[in-house]
Amino acid sequence: MDKVGIVGGIGPASTLDYYRGIVNGYRERTEEDRYPEIVICSINMTEMLSFVQKKDWDALTAMLVMAVKSLAGAGVSFAAIASNTPHIVFDRVQRESPLPLISIVDETGKYAQSTGCKKAVVIGTRFTMNSGFYAEGFEKYGIAAIVPTRGLQEDIHNLIFPRLENGIVVPEDKETMLGIVRGLIAEHQADSLVLGCTELPLMIQNDDLDTFLLNTTQIHIEAILNRLI
Amino acid sequence: MDKVGIVGGIGPASTLDYYRGIVNGYRERTEEDRYPEIVICSINMTEMLSFVQKKDWDALTAMLVMAVKSLAGAGVSFAAIASNTPHIVFDRVQRESPLPLISIVDETGKYAQSTGCKKAVVIGTRFTMNSGFYAEGFEKYGIAAIVPTRGLQEDIHNLIFPRLENGIVVPEDKETMLGIVRGLIAEHQADSLVLGCTELPLMIQNDDLDTFLLNTTQIHIEAILNRLI
Repeated sequence: MDKVGIVGGIGPASTLDYYRGIVNGYRERTEEDRYPEIVICSINMTEMLSFVQKKDWDALTAMLVMAVKSLAGAGVSFAAIASNTPHIVFDRVQRESPLPLISIVDETGKYAQSTGCKKAVVIGTRFTMNSGFYAEGFEKYGIAAIVPTRGLQEDIHNLIFPRLENGIVVPEDKETMLGIVRGLIAEHQADSLVLGCTELPLMIQNDDLDTFLLNTTQIHIEAILNRLI
Repeated sequence: MDKVGIVGGIGPASTLDYYRGIVNGYRERTEEDRYPEIVICSINMTEMLSFVQKKDWDALTAMLVMAVKSLAGAGVSFAAIASNTPHIVFDRVQRESPLPLISIVDETGKYAQSTGCKKAVVIGTRFTMNSGFYAEGFEKYGIAAIVPTRGLQEDIHNLIFPRLENGIVVPEDKETMLGIVRGLIAEHQADSLVLGCTELPLMIQNDDLDTFLLNTTQIHIEAILNRLI
């Protein structure tokens, strides 16, 4: 069986979701009382975000490539970066990686296309929203990825950091976020919402909105399971 | 900073506890908004237990040494096996390991001595109870480690597998377990109880018993943190 590698720790809460999701998903799908070997390399998020903030893409790429090489050293056959933000440099990391990598953006685009989405609003960290990698990644699937204006990007970012990123959902933050999201969906007449930060599913669930949710964490986990099974 | 390696997946529920415990414990102790790099190599528990059941200590050792070597390949500087049962072959794994390993048994013995324990009842899987490694490991700390008779070992084992091992606490199982434990403590006039299976703290907490609990998971995590900080 293939052994999967996860670059985790960005943040720790969603790393737990990936681990649980892969173990439980594998058991459910195969009905076997076993689960794949998983190697998680949990990196330092504070350091990673400092590179993102400084737009030091070389350092960010180097950090991620080092993590992927650690996973290769541990014998995994493919890997995934368990976070949206570092996908800013996904193409560069993939080029320098000794392993095939599963992109959260590409898998979400593929899934969005298969479910008939045409226009999606993307929320996530400030970095994910303003770097344009979702628009770029979705283009080949014929889907428009809309990001909020700069002011709203800041509001959304501050509803993620630091509490949600640490796995804490504050009810008032959730209400504020849902209000912003409803406004964006109506304004752009979007048919779907990309939860473009792996902690967002802790805050926003299907019942909260009438809009079709693209849960990037779950889609990424399913893609990993598809590759394993 | 040192990078810690965890041999996990045995079972998955306690692997999550280790990851969370190291990340949160590090943050609390250092008051820094960062956390150490952690590499987890999650192995196949079903396969591991099949070796234990067959008492194939060579295969068990080989499996664990391979996991530790994976961690070494990923660049960690020391490692821990996040489970009591495989400590049956801890000494052999340590001898063949390229890395220093932190033993859950040794750390628990050290901690038990520092808190004045003299006689502890040990519960865990059938394998942990009947292999005698707690008695052996505690000897040098001047602590007697008592295990239940064979019949009770079976009962306790069956209260762990399969549900608790998968992170599920059944209230009736908990009551049965507490009844057994109270009987053992009274019978042996023990001053402490070793929760010698990393999932047992999910079932038994301090409030449940008057006896001093040796939570091996937590003690192991603290020892990892001591080494990191």
